[in-house]
Amino acid sequence: MRIGLLTGGGDCPGLNAAIRAVVLRANAARDDVVGFHHGWRGVVEGDVETLTPASTRGILETGGTMLRTARYHPDEHEGGVAAVQESIERQRLDVLIVVGGDGTLGSASSIASIEIPIIGIPKTIDNDVAGTTRCIGFDTAVATAAEAIDRVHTTGESHDRVMVVEVMGRSTGWLAVCAGLAAGADAICLPERLMSIHELAKAVQSHHDAGSTSSVIVVAEGAEFFDCGATGTGSVGATVASDLVALTGYETRLTVLGHIQRGGMPSAADRLLATSFGAAAVDAAHDRAFSSLVSWHDDNVELRPLETVMQGCRPVPAYLLKLASDLTIC
Amino acid sequence: MRIGLLTGGGDCPGLNAAIRAVVLRANAARDDVVGFHHGWRGVVEGDVETLTPASTRGILETGGTMLRTARYHPDEHEGGVAAVQESIERQRLDVLIVVGGDGTLGSASSIASIEIPIIGIPKTIDNDVAGTTRCIGFDTAVATAAEAIDRVHTTGESHDRVMVVEVMGRSTGWLAVCAGLAAGADAICLPERLMSIHELAKAVQSHHDAGSTSSVIVVAEGAEFFDCGATGTGSVGATVASDLVALTGYETRLTVLGHIQRGGMPSAADRLLATSFGAAAVDAAHDRAFSSLVSWHDDNVELRPLETVMQGCRPVPAYLLKLASDLTIC
Amino acid sequence: MRIGLLTGGGDCPGLNAAIRAVVLRANAARDDVVGFHHGWRGVVEGDVETLTPASTRGILETGGTMLRTARYHPDEHEGGVAAVQESIERQRLDVLIVVGGDGTLGSASSIASIEIPIIGIPKTIDNDVAGTTRCIGFDTAVATAAEAIDRVHTTGESHDRVMVVEVMGRSTGWLAVCAGLAAGADAICLPERLMSIHELAKAVQSHHDAGSTSSVIVVAEGAEFFDCGATGTGSVGATVASDLVALTGYETRLTVLGHIQRGGMPSAADRLLATSFGAAAVDAAHDRAFSSLVSWHDDNVELRPLETVMQGCRPVPAYLLKLASDLTIC
Amino acid sequence: MRIGLLTGGGDCPGLNAAIRAVVLRANAARDDVVGFHHGWRGVVEGDVETLTPASTRGILETGGTMLRTARYHPDEHEGGVAAVQESIERQRLDVLIVVGGDGTLGSASSIASIEIPIIGIPKTIDNDVAGTTRCIGFDTAVATAAEAIDRVHTTGESHDRVMVVEVMGRSTGWLAVCAGLAAGADAICLPERLMSIHELAKAVQSHHDAGSTSSVIVVAEGAEFFDCGATGTGSVGATVASDLVALTGYETRLTVLGHIQRGGMPSAADRLLATSFGAAAVDAAHDRAFSSLVSWHDDNVELRPLETVMQGCRPVPAYLLKLASDLTIC
Repeated sequence: MRIGLLTGGGDCPGLNAAIRAVVLRANAARDDVVGFHHGWRGVVEGDVETLTPASTRGILETGGTMLRTARYHPDEHEGGVAAVQESIERQRLDVLIVVGGDGTLGSASSIASIEIPIIGIPKTIDNDVAGTTRCIGFDTAVATAAEAIDRVHTTGESHDRVMVVEVMGRSTGWLAVCAGLAAGADAICLPERLMSIHELAKAVQSHHDAGSTSSVIVVAEGAEFFDCGATGTGSVGATVASDLVALTGYETRLTVLGHIQRGGMPSAADRLLATSFGAAAVDAAHDRAFSSLVSWHDDNVELRPLETVMQGCRPVPAYLLKLASDLTIC
Repeated sequence: MRIGLLTGGGDCPGLNAAIRAVVLRANAARDDVVGFHHGWRGVVEGDVETLTPASTRGILETGGTMLRTARYHPDEHEGGVAAVQESIERQRLDVLIVVGGDGTLGSASSIASIEIPIIGIPKTIDNDVAGTTRCIGFDTAVATAAEAIDRVHTTGESHDRVMVVEVMGRSTGWLAVCAGLAAGADAICLPERLMSIHELAKAVQSHHDAGSTSSVIVVAEGAEFFDCGATGTGSVGATVASDLVALTGYETRLTVLGHIQRGGMPSAADRLLATSFGAAAVDAAHDRAFSSLVSWHDDNVELRPLETVMQGCRPVPAYLLKLASDLTIC
Repeated sequence: MRIGLLTGGGDCPGLNAAIRAVVLRANAARDDVVGFHHGWRGVVEGDVETLTPASTRGILETGGTMLRTARYHPDEHEGGVAAVQESIERQRLDVLIVVGGDGTLGSASSIASIEIPIIGIPKTIDNDVAGTTRCIGFDTAVATAAEAIDRVHTTGESHDRVMVVEVMGRSTGWLAVCAGLAAGADAICLPERLMSIHELAKAVQSHHDAGSTSSVIVVAEGAEFFDCGATGTGSVGATVASDLVALTGYETRLTVLGHIQRGGMPSAADRLLATSFGAAAVDAAHDRAFSSLVSWHDDNVELRPLETVMQGCRPVPAYLLKLASDLTIC
Repeated sequence: MRIGLLTGGGDCPGLNAAIRAVVLRANAARDDVVGFHHGWRGVVEGDVETLTPASTRGILETGGTMLRTARYHPDEHEGGVAAVQESIERQRLDVLIVVGGDGTLGSASSIASIEIPIIGIPKTIDNDVAGTTRCIGFDTAVATAAEAIDRVHTTGESHDRVMVVEVMGRSTGWLAVCAGLAAGADAICLPERLMSIHELAKAVQSHHDAGSTSSVIVVAEGAEFFDCGATGTGSVGATVASDLVALTGYETRLTVLGHIQRGGMPSAADRLLATSFGAAAVDAAHDRAFSSLVSWHDDNVELRPLETVMQGCRPVPAYLLKLASDLTIC
């Protein structure tokens, strides 16, 4: 069998572990693997390299992707899909394994619909691909963000400050709620529920009135407040911080975690998930289970229809929203 | 409501996060919480302390258990169960939340059967409590063991050695297989399948004949070989190491990870799991869902009958055994 | 002996280790220790607590300071110094141990000059207190910043981007140069040398022309460029990032590390340094070596005159500036 | 200039950072670098590879040594030194940079004495090479050992146990004392002072009588006791553990850290030290400062005569021995 492989969309920890697993599993089955550079763009441009156990040696524990990545969707470019089809034929591929988030996998789903044999693997630090409970990269991002919030905690306590920490998550609050709960945040602001800055300020006030001398507020970058005073080009975290100063008078500091959330060495859990997904994708190819998504359900690897990813972002479930209410100040 | 709480069996990371979550959730519901020291022994001896948000402050990210623990089973001591019942009455408890592995929860199940209101929370770095897919402490132990195996890897490669790493796991190979796969071990020896030391030696030989200059062999302490040459009082890891020297002639070194696997700061994932479990146990108490086990299924907290834990250790599932075969040398 | 203790200025990792060492060493010598809250402000306001081995148990490995801190200089407030003197007399202190950076220790030095028995301990993540080669907190901050730069590296490589990372350091570039070199930054911009954004852009261009597809630029917040195009209220990192886009056309991203650099668990090296400094300060008190600074020189703890801290920030030494030139692109 | 490079003796974190720095610095000066495999053995056997910025890319943060290593001393083999000389001539080398501990550098010193141009770089997790205050690998080993002791602490406290942790250090107690102090060990047993197991047991007893419920005892593998009861083939840690059980009756557990102490990713401080040393060695070669040791003194890189390494192991200094007495129970 000849297998094509690409990683698309934003980078995250565990992509290399998935690449290695595809190559090792394929090698054991005497398959060949070619990797496309820069996601879908490399398919369109025919930018490939042969992947072997030797060329993927030592990448299991490294961050990023050795194939590099790009945010490029062939179905949004004139002639893009045809170029993909041609490239796959030129490389005589029996299957294309696509590792990506909802954008990359969305393209995969629409291309798969025209009979091109594709298998998807979900990755995103946002953990919001529909059809799987876990995406590659999420566990590491939660660990990284939680550690950063831990750090900010000690500074807040030492200086009697309100610390606002903005984490990634435009559409969903997975990262904010999991990292926030893991790090004992006092409040967590999510896209999943419209917030009031006045209520948040009141809750902080009560918290401090009851004896606390510092607070840590985690804000997903997609969180929305219906009553923010500050406006402008700043991030939501900046707005929250400046409004809290205005409303409470407490010394307040903002930290925007930024790109460190998606970089670095993958956690053991992400390496294991990515390894499981990569090997399972090759097994699925052998079973000719095309147009499917390798996914994680009830502590097991399962296949789901690839088109499931088109259902839109998977929101944070009720039990986490409840926890975020029950264990925080608002 | 008056809630009793104990942690029993071997310590692991995340116990304090569970204690904190019970206390915070109870406090929000205006419940009182008393903690028993040293597991079941503290119940029998009436060794308690009142737990409050203030007294549990700052423990979320710490290892071990502030309540301390012991391996003591009241149902195996004359008058033990009666003493438990009496203690619960003396403390006027409405429910006893028991955090433990199969031993501690086994006692909980047998005591619960005589109408004492008990709710169980599973914890063990072995991850093998029946009735849940995840136990508190497992994620951290995998991360710790995988990091140790990573370290051993670089030494093996630098010195052209075979490195044998013995990890915990007497009955099941959860820790060995997850940490071994996450760290790219070349072979993983599990209690789940009877092994041959001669086949392992042959596989190592072929691995090196094919160009490798080092190998990392992960051995669960409960792994069995039907044809080991060495006998004696040494651990299975020591036996494997000395047999490999005899059979292959390669320079071989043994590392026994020991207690570091169960200590230390919990991972973000364990803090979140423990927090979810602790809060859910209090919710279950309010729902009078006694004799139940708080458990993790399909990315959600669920309640299962507490007696499920009596079904014996939950073995490593097929997909992990397959991965351990497919991605290693034997 | 009765010992007073305070931590002042910005918090950093290792302050608690220093507090613990003062208390343990004092306890062994049967001295009493009282801790002032919020730095110098607690001395002026008489806000104290008694410190004992029991009350400082478990703080060795925690970030921040259990005494809390503030940026307050009694010598800059009317009656401040008199209030300090009075407070010390009211508490019947034989010595005041002051843990701080150049601001806090500057006040200590001027107060010590009026015959108040003071011993200073240097701490700052900037590592620029004159009179010592190492300050508490620096090693941890370098490790934290280097790890963050590592993370940004993998994202840059995966996306073919120029990554600009702004680290702390207003007056000196200790943190930028040490973390930058440790993490293999391609360029390091320091307050110690006036930079040209055009030269930096040209160097990045040559770097990419020679085959590199990404670059990591570390910028100390106090770095200065004589020819920056962008102006405004943004940080120097933001200016560098936007200028590089304009001059090179490369996709560029900015990460401002912010408060995570000063928080979190201290490294082993910082715990050891802080423990050495804390114990040495008590020993110095017994030797009546007042008006001295506990300092680190040639792998040893030494005492220097406290007034040494008034010499101004200790700049990055020549060999580090040379390294930063020799091993980077500009 | 043509530069030869080797890494010898036990592996440790930071060797790759030193290799990278030699190559980058040499490349900037238009020098060529060849690396010998397996330490001195590769010189004798002519086993080399050309090292370039491309071939050393990405190794800065990796453990071990890409050149691999061996414990081989040419001066102890018939014709060994002549073979070294011949190999150096065949490769037309202007200088040989030798990275090693006292064994490897001892050979370097004796070979350098016959007019072969050699520059030494000290590395060892034992930190005991004479002529330098820091060796590559020590900082990381201290961090690794301290983290392991931290983990053991929480288990000891949870179970009311005496935990014995055996760390590396046959001749000197650098690692034991620095990691032990950093992790708050209750007692530290070093080769530098002859110990009494009865006194240690009495101190543990008093510690527990005074209210402690657990103790952590760090033992260097070279520690000696004049009155140990147990004899046999076990390690000193095993002897201490079994004697403490016999003398105190407390539940006691042993952890032998083993190879994890020398493996893994180097700390930021080790990367910086190794980078400084590697670049300085090339500078020294340009200055024709042969027969010298690149060393660390008073926060600076300095050159010392290479023969300094023959003075024997550098012992733990007085201030650390004093700290180990003052802050522990014996």
